[in-house]
Amino acid sequence: MSSNSFGQLFTVTTFGESHGPAIGCVIDGCPPGLAITPEEFRHDLERRATGKSRHTSARREADEVEILSGVYEGRTTGTPIALLIRNTDQRSKDYANIAQQFRPGHADYSYWQKYGIRDPRGGGRSSARETTMRVAAGVIAKKWLQQRYGVQVRGYLAQLGPVTPRAFDWDAVEQNPFFWPCAEQVPELESYMDALRKSGDSIGARVNVVADGVPAGWGEPIYGKLDGELAAALMSINAVKGVEIGDGFAAVTQKGTEHRDEMSPQGFLSNHAGGILGGIATGQQVTASMALKPTSSLRLPGQTVNVEGQPVEVITTGRHDPCVGIRATPIAEAMMALVLMDQALRHRAQCGDVGEVPPHVPGTRGG
Amino acid sequence: MSSNSFGQLFTVTTFGESHGPAIGCVIDGCPPGLAITPEEFRHDLERRATGKSRHTSARREADEVEILSGVYEGRTTGTPIALLIRNTDQRSKDYANIAQQFRPGHADYSYWQKYGIRDPRGGGRSSARETTMRVAAGVIAKKWLQQRYGVQVRGYLAQLGPVTPRAFDWDAVEQNPFFWPCAEQVPELESYMDALRKSGDSIGARVNVVADGVPAGWGEPIYGKLDGELAAALMSINAVKGVEIGDGFAAVTQKGTEHRDEMSPQGFLSNHAGGILGGIATGQQVTASMALKPTSSLRLPGQTVNVEGQPVEVITTGRHDPCVGIRATPIAEAMMALVLMDQALRHRAQCGDVGEVPPHVPGTRGG
Amino acid sequence: MSSNSFGQLFTVTTFGESHGPAIGCVIDGCPPGLAITPEEFRHDLERRATGKSRHTSARREADEVEILSGVYEGRTTGTPIALLIRNTDQRSKDYANIAQQFRPGHADYSYWQKYGIRDPRGGGRSSARETTMRVAAGVIAKKWLQQRYGVQVRGYLAQLGPVTPRAFDWDAVEQNPFFWPCAEQVPELESYMDALRKSGDSIGARVNVVADGVPAGWGEPIYGKLDGELAAALMSINAVKGVEIGDGFAAVTQKGTEHRDEMSPQGFLSNHAGGILGGIATGQQVTASMALKPTSSLRLPGQTVNVEGQPVEVITTGRHDPCVGIRATPIAEAMMALVLMDQALRHRAQCGDVGEVPPHVPGTRGG
Amino acid sequence: MSSNSFGQLFTVTTFGESHGPAIGCVIDGCPPGLAITPEEFRHDLERRATGKSRHTSARREADEVEILSGVYEGRTTGTPIALLIRNTDQRSKDYANIAQQFRPGHADYSYWQKYGIRDPRGGGRSSARETTMRVAAGVIAKKWLQQRYGVQVRGYLAQLGPVTPRAFDWDAVEQNPFFWPCAEQVPELESYMDALRKSGDSIGARVNVVADGVPAGWGEPIYGKLDGELAAALMSINAVKGVEIGDGFAAVTQKGTEHRDEMSPQGFLSNHAGGILGGIATGQQVTASMALKPTSSLRLPGQTVNVEGQPVEVITTGRHDPCVGIRATPIAEAMMALVLMDQALRHRAQCGDVGEVPPHVPGTRGG
Repeated sequence: MSSNSFGQLFTVTTFGESHGPAIGCVIDGCPPGLAITPEEFRHDLERRATGKSRHTSARREADEVEILSGVYEGRTTGTPIALLIRNTDQRSKDYANIAQQFRPGHADYSYWQKYGIRDPRGGGRSSARETTMRVAAGVIAKKWLQQRYGVQVRGYLAQLGPVTPRAFDWDAVEQNPFFWPCAEQVPELESYMDALRKSGDSIGARVNVVADGVPAGWGEPIYGKLDGELAAALMSINAVKGVEIGDGFAAVTQKGTEHRDEMSPQGFLSNHAGGILGGIATGQQVTASMALKPTSSLRLPGQTVNVEGQPVEVITTGRHDPCVGIRATPIAEAMMALVLMDQALRHRAQCGDVGEVPPHVPGTRGG
Repeated sequence: MSSNSFGQLFTVTTFGESHGPAIGCVIDGCPPGLAITPEEFRHDLERRATGKSRHTSARREADEVEILSGVYEGRTTGTPIALLIRNTDQRSKDYANIAQQFRPGHADYSYWQKYGIRDPRGGGRSSARETTMRVAAGVIAKKWLQQRYGVQVRGYLAQLGPVTPRAFDWDAVEQNPFFWPCAEQVPELESYMDALRKSGDSIGARVNVVADGVPAGWGEPIYGKLDGELAAALMSINAVKGVEIGDGFAAVTQKGTEHRDEMSPQGFLSNHAGGILGGIATGQQVTASMALKPTSSLRLPGQTVNVEGQPVEVITTGRHDPCVGIRATPIAEAMMALVLMDQALRHRAQCGDVGEVPPHVPGTRGG
Repeated sequence: MSSNSFGQLFTVTTFGESHGPAIGCVIDGCPPGLAITPEEFRHDLERRATGKSRHTSARREADEVEILSGVYEGRTTGTPIALLIRNTDQRSKDYANIAQQFRPGHADYSYWQKYGIRDPRGGGRSSARETTMRVAAGVIAKKWLQQRYGVQVRGYLAQLGPVTPRAFDWDAVEQNPFFWPCAEQVPELESYMDALRKSGDSIGARVNVVADGVPAGWGEPIYGKLDGELAAALMSINAVKGVEIGDGFAAVTQKGTEHRDEMSPQGFLSNHAGGILGGIATGQQVTASMALKPTSSLRLPGQTVNVEGQPVEVITTGRHDPCVGIRATPIAEAMMALVLMDQALRHRAQCGDVGEVPPHVPGTRGG
Repeated sequence: MSSNSFGQLFTVTTFGESHGPAIGCVIDGCPPGLAITPEEFRHDLERRATGKSRHTSARREADEVEILSGVYEGRTTGTPIALLIRNTDQRSKDYANIAQQFRPGHADYSYWQKYGIRDPRGGGRSSARETTMRVAAGVIAKKWLQQRYGVQVRGYLAQLGPVTPRAFDWDAVEQNPFFWPCAEQVPELESYMDALRKSGDSIGARVNVVADGVPAGWGEPIYGKLDGELAAALMSINAVKGVEIGDGFAAVTQKGTEHRDEMSPQGFLSNHAGGILGGIATGQQVTASMALKPTSSLRLPGQTVNVEGQPVEVITTGRHDPCVGIRATPIAEAMMALVLMDQALRHRAQCGDVGEVPPHVPGTRGG
């Protein structure tokens, strides 16, 4: 499968460079009959958009989605759904001076080594601009999962550099530009970000994403494991350096008696596993976490080389988020939704639909 | 692609249950002309084998590999290589009493929810027995990577519960049953494990795996990223709950000036990225780390339910490792080798062989 | 996907050379709960077997199938089903003298050009021996299609060189070694084959294969069309040089008024299309036909070259069918069954199970 | 892989309905550095276009290709190439009255059975409009094959209903609107088509397509055979009902001494095989042929049913070719080019580039 496609049965193929004419995607395998309008993409695209607050980069993107195919009279027809967004605010001149050098921490050098040619404008294909289409495709997956199976996918910012939430409230998450689950900390985060921006530096972050209502039985053994695919999906997001399922790295120092999730007739007694055993959903909440590195686009000078291998100093003068993790939350949600959607289709291919699986254990949310 | 297959061009399909007649794999896409004998599998299979020391489970497996196809007069022919290992030491009676109940922390319940039927003997398909074939396939990948490109893949145990290495020496790793990089700590580890076994409990671990000599340019953009595929590969190993590339979760609290790897005419000045930028290798060492949970097979009783949903108590009486992470090192190496082998073939499909890419930056290990 | 695998969701991977230790296959994606025993493979394997009559080659193969995995207490578990057949009657000496030359009409030369190495014993991987595993996998597909949806796949020999059937009777097909649908012609065919064998030459053939009961709606648009996949499946059988769906090449000289299948409330009025429109089943009988070339293994001498490029004369002295098309019937059935099984799973993945599609047109066999 | 994608390494995903806003494709896996401009698509798109002569339908399509991504400063960058064509001449009113009924011989009924919903405007996704993007993608494949390996793909109309060529001249093919290889027959064909159009009926056709310069060794064994993939590729073209490789169905009545292609130090002595043995190219010309049915869109009335299952009469009043085979020639060329391009990349992935394969037999065009 091509490396710009994601999913086996709900297959999303994205295309487009940061400063090319357009970005877009083709979604193949969507069940027919799902109602969808261009307006439905707006909410999640705005959640992801740069320019949403003064804490994310100043580039303003209209991000108006055009549906080119696969939808007739407002419903999906089962044929490929193509979505297109024109790039309207590219400011190529911002990037002209870095075409001949490799920005540290960016894909400039590795792309050039791979292909011998690269589009230097705004990072080209390696720009996070591409994730816009993941979010758009995720809107469709989220809607179908919710309507068909009652599955809900949600994420939040779980750490901003040294800051961790003091309380947790889902309602708070959507009411601040950080997707932060503790409302009273928001002023603190704003101060932190203001100081960071002044310093010219950037900071890492952690995003958590969970799915409620996932039927027990979704996921596949061995190499198509639900956790394996989540790991690939989240690690494929720009700047992500680590992925955890359930307790993640905390499990390194746990005892077996502490980690194993015991069961009772009323259901599981804990969820250290993150809702997945042997790669297959248990019916509990599916939980994942990911680490994002600090952006490497800084106003502080750094050493690098140019395409001739000579030493040069690089300074980023364009618009850039000092914490790329802030707007990664909707992207993480989208990737989890894409994984679940694909697994849902694969499950009913082999095992029939949910209603066909055997009765579940009393007290658990079974198949 | 089927969920029991791994890799797009160097495709490994495994089959077999823990206590069925045999386990095996089919490797498709291997370049022709590679010398390979049944004896070459022995070293890594022994490194992975249970029964290797008193710190891993007592089951003794002969693990004699039979080459069924794809090799003629000692060389690969380009056709599928099938490898077979008969299961000779199954002791099914150990497991007979747990066929009707779900072991906490195991895949019993999720498999049963998915398929409505399961092979309960030794965990069936979800047993780590399957990883034997990953190691076998990895032997071929490792050999080809070494011969063709000089790539070397190595791993070690980086944490055993609370214990971390006090020193690092590659030579030490292969000289103790823990794959531990600090020789003087081995007695300490043995004491720790003896006490743990007596307690009936188990412990988590961390394994690191690295690749030296990976040419800059291997890896693919967006969804076929080298780090994304490593994440999937490592997370697909039994008991793994977290994966890191480069600095991993440490990046959450790093500043951009700290994390970004600056470059000079002599090469990169650091390697926080783990040798991968934008999903593509930079020519530096590729580094990954994974967290393994403590095994859930304990002699200490736990609560669970049976297939009728009634509460029962479960105790594991069979042979089990109190730390499954100990023998995960060769499995992690195998998975990294399979990912790199596949990426190597994909790279030369699209971009031609290494020699065709442009000259590299002076001082770096380029394409 | 590897070139030795067939099917996206019901994936069959075969391995093995004609004169290696064994041939086998791994079937991934089979729905759980299907009853299957080793004995069930026997009937179709005997139909395919060489040595079945004096009109097919004298090699006797036991073809005893061992089930290595994926079946527990007589039922499929949803995990990969591995099947193994040991090669017991290899007579490698028959082939020793042709290791250094290329047999005309065989894959010797093209394999050698591709891989630079080949297993010359009995054609190695390119031998029709490989089709044994297609037939074995087809047994499982046929059974599931019949049990789950009432689909029946059947084939027959439709032409033997110049001879065509004078009458058609399904009951006759299984009662003669030619799979010939007209019982009274069987003595004529035997005489034809006896004379052919004496002459040392060989002859081509045509095999037809049909499926009854295929639900309207199976098949996918554009590149996953049911007819496109049937064409690939049948063309992939050794010696096949042409494939037709429905009227096939006769359509070249047909008028539109003659070819288009009109519809009435009682259903379609004809079936020139072969049960497929736009790549998707109409609910009518699915019909396909394939042309098989005469085998190139002849006792009559032919010109060729050796690996040094020098001219040599080649004579085949081993066991060979003078008409390979005779035993292609069960292979064609197996390939059609594999295509339909895969399409069935793909259809219910995207569109839900048959019961979920809209009511069909009165008088047709609808979804 | 999604059913709207073609090729494993050079992957073309098409989207769009006949009367939707646009059609397009995404090409993933193209080698970097290939020069390409929007103008280069024009020639083949005009060859395919309706409205090219009075013998094809009157719809005029601008078919201006916009390159949305994957090309920087006129060269491919290795990232996905998205191509877009706006639909500008849709005339939806032509089709409004057939939304409630099923046109005989069209995919209306099967799509409706599959999805329970369909876009009735101009056949929606099942329209031959989709093939425009195959031709566009084929332009890139043809150019790369020609530049990199000297491979040339060409096709011609080999039969128009009852008429067959009296002579063969490649130069003639591109100088008449039929792609007919015998110039003196063109007036005869024009008279035939004029009479056919007056009658309101349509006619079938045969198209041949060949590739010169294909290196020996391209193609893969068993299920990825070059002939198997050509069969799928050609059968996936709208209206195709049969595919032949080499001698095709003529092989049914051939003797082995007649069919097998003998070899000499100067090369093969004949090419009944069509340049493929065991699924792998021999270095000879690769030859294929396909049968196209007469279009079912006729001015002559036909019986059908509406969505309520009631009998109705259907007449097609819109623009339609009386012989869809006429403009199938560039489509067949494109599909052959896509197959060869994909096989070329797969070959160099496993076996290295052409220069690495062993020396060829004297007198043949070897690897």
